[in-house]
Amino acid sequence: MQGTVGELGEFGLIRELTARLPPHAAVDLGPGDDAAVVRAADGRVVATTDVLLEGRHFRRDWSTAYDVGRKSAAQNLADIAAMGAVPTALLLGLVVPADLPATWATELMDGLRDECKVAGAAVVGGDVVRGDTVTVAITALGDLQGRRPVTRSGARPGDVVAVTGWLGWSAAGYTVLSRGFRSPRAFVEAHRRPEPPYHAGPAAADLGATAMIDVSDGLVADLGHVAAASGVDIDLHAADFDIPAQMADIGQAVGVDPLVWVLSGGEDHAIVACFPAEAALPARWRVVGRVSAVRPGRTAAVTVDGAPWDRAGGWDHFSG
Amino acid sequence: MQGTVGELGEFGLIRELTARLPPHAAVDLGPGDDAAVVRAADGRVVATTDVLLEGRHFRRDWSTAYDVGRKSAAQNLADIAAMGAVPTALLLGLVVPADLPATWATELMDGLRDECKVAGAAVVGGDVVRGDTVTVAITALGDLQGRRPVTRSGARPGDVVAVTGWLGWSAAGYTVLSRGFRSPRAFVEAHRRPEPPYHAGPAAADLGATAMIDVSDGLVADLGHVAAASGVDIDLHAADFDIPAQMADIGQAVGVDPLVWVLSGGEDHAIVACFPAEAALPARWRVVGRVSAVRPGRTAAVTVDGAPWDRAGGWDHFSG
Repeated sequence: MQGTVGELGEFGLIRELTARLPPHAAVDLGPGDDAAVVRAADGRVVATTDVLLEGRHFRRDWSTAYDVGRKSAAQNLADIAAMGAVPTALLLGLVVPADLPATWATELMDGLRDECKVAGAAVVGGDVVRGDTVTVAITALGDLQGRRPVTRSGARPGDVVAVTGWLGWSAAGYTVLSRGFRSPRAFVEAHRRPEPPYHAGPAAADLGATAMIDVSDGLVADLGHVAAASGVDIDLHAADFDIPAQMADIGQAVGVDPLVWVLSGGEDHAIVACFPAEAALPARWRVVGRVSAVRPGRTAAVTVDGAPWDRAGGWDHFSG
Repeated sequence: MQGTVGELGEFGLIRELTARLPPHAAVDLGPGDDAAVVRAADGRVVATTDVLLEGRHFRRDWSTAYDVGRKSAAQNLADIAAMGAVPTALLLGLVVPADLPATWATELMDGLRDECKVAGAAVVGGDVVRGDTVTVAITALGDLQGRRPVTRSGARPGDVVAVTGWLGWSAAGYTVLSRGFRSPRAFVEAHRRPEPPYHAGPAAADLGATAMIDVSDGLVADLGHVAAASGVDIDLHAADFDIPAQMADIGQAVGVDPLVWVLSGGEDHAIVACFPAEAALPARWRVVGRVSAVRPGRTAAVTVDGAPWDRAGGWDHFSG
């Protein structure tokens, strides 16, 4: 396909985008009507939305359209998984400048479609409009399959804190890219295309998780939301994190303590959950901390080895 | 509240926005977690998404933030109704410049909330990010309550075409505003704040509607989607439309045939449906046309009194 989205026109672009979407068992009615119809056998639907802007959440010179699609789908589908639900569907609101190559939009859709496939979901609808800034607005839906939703507010003193998935890889990749390097590839690719452990969300619910969140802003920052919502303190044990040798090497090369990437880096969409201490956790979960009662006269807090963690803490989308 | 959204910060703004949202019976879990949980008793969920950009879909000098909220909710909730479903929930993706007054964002939320209330739905979640252009990305969800979804593709030769809701009022208001006037108020307000007949969507399904769509791009243009998807011709009868005297007057004053507003004007979100000829339609439905087989050797088409309608036909978001 040649040309720009402006040359293709609104309806031509919609045709090209929807032509890339296969049928899916959970989708009664896909794109092309006023709305899609998606199965929700549980009798409830889980829903989340995120907006990604060019220049803020992705750069076209750092990531391909395909990778932006994978990544923007991943961050929404991970939110569904972190409730204990199985992702079912995704909707796309897309703002494109008229001079954007049409292939950028179709490759974005390929990425959305393929990430949905990994998570078991399907792209079911969307909207495209013309504007100055490439903007990708995603809504993801999911099915709890009879599970209670695992919120941020259920952590209890005595719980253990456990993580699964990648931690710090995307942040390490970002550091590398921002210094003009294109390698090590493993970290650069982790930044371009996170791999959330979708299966782990529903599995954690089944294992008795009391609270859960996906790590999008950084582990300490996101656990701060759990601590505040649950009214508990959380202490992480630095030595319990497994820093891969390759990450330690690149940390030394660029002068960054890799623990900063692990504890403050977001966008890997690892899943962190609190479990009763007696829960039998499979090996893919790593226990990295404990929940305790808030100290008298203090507010709920996350500490690392008993001390505040103040090195590059989290990500405020308004200040970054 | 004083100040800008930048001064309030991401989490401060989210707090202000979510504080405005009342609890709702269909919402098991509202804003504040990784995702919301909404009841979908039918076992299916209807979902649609739209993106509205400042300068393209709304102007801050023409419409208040509250009206933008009402309007952007209305256009999505109308899509849900036009499937034959009852709206249940709405999610907001909001892009705001740091210097936007915080009250603009909170009044937008008030508008979303109040329009949701009219339709029986609730705002259940969202995302706010900083960017150059005020962007409102809405996803609406709905419940079919056991009905089959009414798509665009079920119209059959012999069906009648009937409309309910307002037609041409928003377009007349737009004409007035674009010429620098602020009255007649009825049309200006119709442009700022459409009133879709939400109840009519599920009611049409119950009345046996074979195809349905909400009028967002103009009646002839939107019926063009029905004709194409159903593989039928549709002929509208101009004399069957009721042009209000006030609309005729303003048409004369600005030199526009009001039939152009009625047949080509969008954004009122009237609902148009095809019904079997024998359907007993309540008075609020006005029969304005007929469905017939596509003429041999031709493609599906919409005509007015047997002739093509080529005056200001519809709205392509890429060319407007």
